[in-house]
Formats: sequence, structure tokens, C-alpha cells
Amino acid sequence: MRTRRGPYAKSAERRQQIVEQAYRAFATRGYHGSSLREIAAASGISLSNLQHHFATKEELLVTVLTRRDEQGHGAVSGRQGLPFREHVLAQAAANEGVPGLIALYSILSAEAVTQEHPGHAYFAERYEALREEYEAEFSTLRAQGRLRPGVEPALAATTVIALWEGVQLQWLYAPDRVDAGAALRAYLDLVIVPQADAL
Amino acid sequence: MRTRRGPYAKSAERRQQIVEQAYRAFATRGYHGSSLREIAAASGISLSNLQHHFATKEELLVTVLTRRDEQGHGAVSGRQGLPFREHVLAQAAANEGVPGLIALYSILSAEAVTQEHPGHAYFAERYEALREEYEAEFSTLRAQGRLRPGVEPALAATTVIALWEGVQLQWLYAPDRVDAGAALRAYLDLVIVPQADAL
Repeated sequence: MRTRRGPYAKSAERRQQIVEQAYRAFATRGYHGSSLREIAAASGISLSNLQHHFATKEELLVTVLTRRDEQGHGAVSGRQGLPFREHVLAQAAANEGVPGLIALYSILSAEAVTQEHPGHAYFAERYEALREEYEAEFSTLRAQGRLRPGVEPALAATTVIALWEGVQLQWLYAPDRVDAGAALRAYLDLVIVPQADAL
Repeated sequence: MRTRRGPYAKSAERRQQIVEQAYRAFATRGYHGSSLREIAAASGISLSNLQHHFATKEELLVTVLTRRDEQGHGAVSGRQGLPFREHVLAQAAANEGVPGLIALYSILSAEAVTQEHPGHAYFAERYEALREEYEAEFSTLRAQGRLRPGVEPALAATTVIALWEGVQLQWLYAPDRVDAGAALRAYLDLVIVPQADAL
């Protein structure tokens, strides 16, 4: 038995298709290097048809980024009660299954450094929010006597985010030789004291 | 007394001017997002005049990257006898004076992940060479009893490079709140034992 699909369902499907092609384009050529014309062609529709769904490339970029957030990329979501260290390592392992997503974030976060880029506010806020969240995690560990003496929660937060993104980029170049999870684990084990040895 | 400038000097100057404009364009819009036409306009010359000096955008990219290397960016150059830790921190401090260069490397290294990108081999080899060089540094420290037990030279090498690039990207977004040098120093002080306390 097939579900009957009205014009709304078709439109939602078409939008989804466009967003997927935009995602691919942005992940390989960046925002500036992608055109609505190419994205329309890859979606098998005309430019004017695409523009009926997304009037501008900016709108498409914002949709790509917010959809990914809704689907659970990011630090907070999907935490599922795991302790911080385990959550980071589980997320790093999951990221190995989505190299396209890693490429998308790598290229857009670098491109969006300039104030004029339509993704600038998104990434500036994302880094700010991640740093705050991770700093709170390290502060909690410190309160539990589980942060190595001398380790600064704010600096450790900045470091985990930086190391994570940097090592994922190296991994995209050399997946056989770079192990992002191992690098993160080694760092976390340098700064976090095991539960049993809490200070 | 003015030096007389023949056609060769003029041509070299014009090339230099084009390379500078290409550098600016690549650092803000990436390789795919920049066009020879725009670079020519920014250089105050016609497209065909630009193409007389650089036939393709690829050729211009390679020139931009190799010139930067010649001018001393990169890990090995300018070492000037400093120990590894001090060299890294001095280079990180120097990088604060060249945000455009940091932006250029951030955007191109992310864009060039795809095999088809004309900068792919350059960045793949650059990461490989940096990892080897830093691994050798950490191995030397280990031989001197100056590496904290349990720290793996290869993993520490990957980590320093990743952390460095990642924290510089965060710094481009929030120069007032992110201190790349402090993050690098904190990591190096976690893994390197001070000279006086050598194991």
C-alpha cells in the first residue's frame, strides 16, 4: 500500500534533494566556489525551479547548516548520558563515517572567517558555544578532583575543539595514517584523571 | 639616484603585484571562489595581460604557495638554533602578525582535501613532512629523557600540528578571546619535561 503523496510532500522531497546537492557542492568547492546554477543542474531541475524553493545561495547555506545541526551534529546533542571523555570519543568515532560532513565544516569554517561571509555569525557563535560548553565540562571535572593540576578549563576547552578539528582535517588527507580518535584520547588522558584516582 | 628599470624589472614587478592580489583573493574566497578576471581587475590590468604572466589559475596558486614557503613560512625555516618548544612558540607569536596568511592556509588546506584540487598534493605532502619533522623532534626529546612517559612521538606530532591549525582558526574568529600561543604552550608543557627535570 502506497502512501498518497500530495503537492506538499513532493515539494518537501524536492527541497530535500536540493539541500543534499548544495551540501555536496559546498563540501567540495566551498560556498564561494559553488553556484545555484550548478546545484540546480545536479538536482536535475532548472535554476528558476530551484529559486522557487531557495531564493538565494545564502538561504541555501543557512538551510544546510541548520539541518545538519537538527540531525545531531554538534557537541550537546546525542550525549545520551555519557561522561564527557566518552562522549567526545564516541562522537569522534561516529565522525569517521561522515567524511563529507567533516569536509563541509572544515571548508566553510575557514571560508567564513571574513565578516562578509553569510556563514560568519554561525561559526563565530558555534565556536563560542562549544568553548563555553567544554569549559563547563572541564570545570565540573576539576570540582570532582579529576582535572590534572595546572590544567585551565578554558584553555583545555579551546584545545580540545582545535585539536579535534585539526586532526580531522589531517585525517581527510591521510585516513590510513591519522587516527583522530587516538589523538583526542591521548590528550584527554593527559588532562583528565581517571575516576578511581580522583585527586 | 634611481636604479634604471628595464622591461625585466617591470615584468617582475607586475608578476609580484598579481601574486599579491591572488593571495588576497585566495585567502578570502578560496581557490574555487576566485577568478582570474577578478584578480586581473584588482591588479589594474586586463585578463589577457594577466594571462601573459600566468596562463592558468593553477599556475597562480602554485606560485602563491611556493613563494610563501620561500619567504619562510613553515616549520623548518628560521629555526635559528632554538629548541623545539621555543621554536614553536616563537613561530606562533610571529603568526599573529600575519592573519591573512593564516586565513590563506586555513581555507586552501580545507578546500584542497579533494583529490582534484590543484593544491591537494602540496597540502598532503606538507602535512606528511611536518608530521615527520615533529615526530623526529619528539623522539629526540624522548632520547634525552624529556618526554613525559606514555607520550607517543608520532601522536604528539600529529597533535601539535592539529592543535596549532585549529586554534589559529578560532583565533581568526575571536582574536580577543583565543590565545593560540597559550594553548600551544600549555600542551607542550604537558608533554615535555623541563630540561632540569629530565627523566
